[in-house]
Amino acid sequence: MKFTIKRNAFIKKMNDVQRAISSKTAIEILTGIKINVTNETLTLTGSDSDISIENEIKADDSDYELSVEEPGAIVLPARFFSEIIKKLPEDTFTLAVNDRFQATITSGQTEYQVNGVNPENYPHLPEVDSNEHLRIAADIFKQIINQTVIAVSTQESRPLLTGVHLTIKDQELHAVATDSHRLSQRKIKLDGAENVSYDIIVPGKSLIELSRMISDSTDQLEIQIAENQILFNFNDTAFYSRLLEGMYPDTDRLIPQSSETTVEFNAVTLLRAIERASLLSHEGRNNVVKLSLNTETQIATLSSNSPEVGNIEEELQFDKLDGNNIEISFNPDYMRAALQALGQSEVRLALTLPLRPFTLTPTEDSEDFIQLITPVRTF
Amino acid sequence: MKFTIKRNAFIKKMNDVQRAISSKTAIEILTGIKINVTNETLTLTGSDSDISIENEIKADDSDYELSVEEPGAIVLPARFFSEIIKKLPEDTFTLAVNDRFQATITSGQTEYQVNGVNPENYPHLPEVDSNEHLRIAADIFKQIINQTVIAVSTQESRPLLTGVHLTIKDQELHAVATDSHRLSQRKIKLDGAENVSYDIIVPGKSLIELSRMISDSTDQLEIQIAENQILFNFNDTAFYSRLLEGMYPDTDRLIPQSSETTVEFNAVTLLRAIERASLLSHEGRNNVVKLSLNTETQIATLSSNSPEVGNIEEELQFDKLDGNNIEISFNPDYMRAALQALGQSEVRLALTLPLRPFTLTPTEDSEDFIQLITPVRTF
Repeated sequence: MKFTIKRNAFIKKMNDVQRAISSKTAIEILTGIKINVTNETLTLTGSDSDISIENEIKADDSDYELSVEEPGAIVLPARFFSEIIKKLPEDTFTLAVNDRFQATITSGQTEYQVNGVNPENYPHLPEVDSNEHLRIAADIFKQIINQTVIAVSTQESRPLLTGVHLTIKDQELHAVATDSHRLSQRKIKLDGAENVSYDIIVPGKSLIELSRMISDSTDQLEIQIAENQILFNFNDTAFYSRLLEGMYPDTDRLIPQSSETTVEFNAVTLLRAIERASLLSHEGRNNVVKLSLNTETQIATLSSNSPEVGNIEEELQFDKLDGNNIEISFNPDYMRAALQALGQSEVRLALTLPLRPFTLTPTEDSEDFIQLITPVRTF
Repeated sequence: MKFTIKRNAFIKKMNDVQRAISSKTAIEILTGIKINVTNETLTLTGSDSDISIENEIKADDSDYELSVEEPGAIVLPARFFSEIIKKLPEDTFTLAVNDRFQATITSGQTEYQVNGVNPENYPHLPEVDSNEHLRIAADIFKQIINQTVIAVSTQESRPLLTGVHLTIKDQELHAVATDSHRLSQRKIKLDGAENVSYDIIVPGKSLIELSRMISDSTDQLEIQIAENQILFNFNDTAFYSRLLEGMYPDTDRLIPQSSETTVEFNAVTLLRAIERASLLSHEGRNNVVKLSLNTETQIATLSSNSPEVGNIEEELQFDKLDGNNIEISFNPDYMRAALQALGQSEVRLALTLPLRPFTLTPTEDSEDFIQLITPVRTF
């Protein structure tokens, strides 16, 4: 095996593949990056057995100036190899491998020899043979990920809740995540998905890595779903994730259908106030803030109190406040994440009773993006 | 106590003082920041008992718009207080303290109450009553610090070596640091220091913090030295550090007076090669690289070998190579720090024997800045 390639272009592809590679894996060979080169393509593969990423570089792509002298394959220690490539002195480098899987990396006057591993010992990528190729705009899917993964559980005690529940039915995609204290649900229309129906749970971690790989230049994702794998294809990247197996809890019944009090805020203004209040709540024993809504006096107050440390009180600016008076206490970290997911919009809070979950929706659209937070009992 | 002040200007002064405050101190009150306000000045104090920093804001300085309603003092939890100030909504804030040492911080609609501590329990700053006020250009002193602290020891087993040895005599300042594997020595003329003589050891950590506080706008440092304290005055800052007590080893005799081989490099070119070689040496068991100088063939080679991982070999570009052939092995991390301290200049290495220390000096000046590295035995 022997090829020469442009260093900077190669580094980008290598960085992408490294997202899947963990140095902590129990399977030694998965700390490596697999490099496979034919006369037509160079393929880089990384995997932590949950996520696998495969990146292709085509020999005729002028960005890479790939010149293949001899096809072949090798697995090299990923972190070490990537550090070497990043520090090489010239614009290009040559990688040659002998039949004892020793790699020689040459660039200018610098020559590294690195011990590699037989690529035949590298696990095969999952096979995803599905006839259905769903297509979705990359920026929309990235938004859906970022708006729902905030609510996945980080606790392994209920593994299903560490995933995002995706259902595709009647040309609609529903994405829901909940850690049982809060919930985030997003819906969109899915064009061209007639007669397609899926019900799967994708690990939140996989989706976070995927969303980081989706750049502004990514147009579209092509999605294929098999028994226990999902495959995303975009640009020259194949991103595989295993699926979580089991029945996701029924979340539809959790979302309240009516409310007693509604209040509308600018999401960013409320976010800043929550951040100020949580400075205090984080110092104290209970990480709780209180929102008091008085509809008669038309005053909204945010407060937090930790006797050892001090307290904070702030009168909030709001757009509209209707219904019953209410005082509600909640974890400000949940509220912060929910408001961040809303971005620069206006938000409507709909509340029923002090201990019943309340919802946050964009004021102009209460259907397609709903978040729910369960209050904390403080008395 | 009650005052109002501009938030952003205050934050800068507060950040400076926080350099001295550690959250890990055993003395509870030192996790706090002391705020003292009179009709003329506001003073902020932080200390970890090794370093103390006092920053003054004058009431007539228009940058701060300081308005004092009632003089007084308080000690507030430093990290928490600083986070609050940074998140407040308006351009100014008001701090009021009642007689139970409860502080009320107000900005716009936001009101924090924070429990403080009686300032009378805060330790007194050391008294440095010296008649000698040495003056030195701030940028020069910062350079001296950065060029010598790289060689201080990080091991507490020989506490004196964690400091930089400063001697002032005959209108010259000598700064030396060594961790017994390497040494860095810098000399400068000190104008206006007739009949002044000092021999002190300043903790490396103090000097690093001091150098971070010296900005491009700092003109001059005024230095006062007492029994066991050194005080640096600049802008409106007083920076105190304790001194290390004891006799610093005699380092003059360590520096070789002659050499058998000399070689001149561009410091940056050599630095990049050392970084490439250390990628490999860091992976192996012994962190060692080898420099081979052949004066007959006029070839300089840098190499490193770790049987488990691989090896690297690189032919180096140099400016001039004279004397005996030599092969020398050393810790590349020491070499890297030494070359970084030299910056964009040319460097001369002067070597005698494979196991004898060698020196690095700027090619154009071998007197005022000398670094020394002890080789490693590899056979």
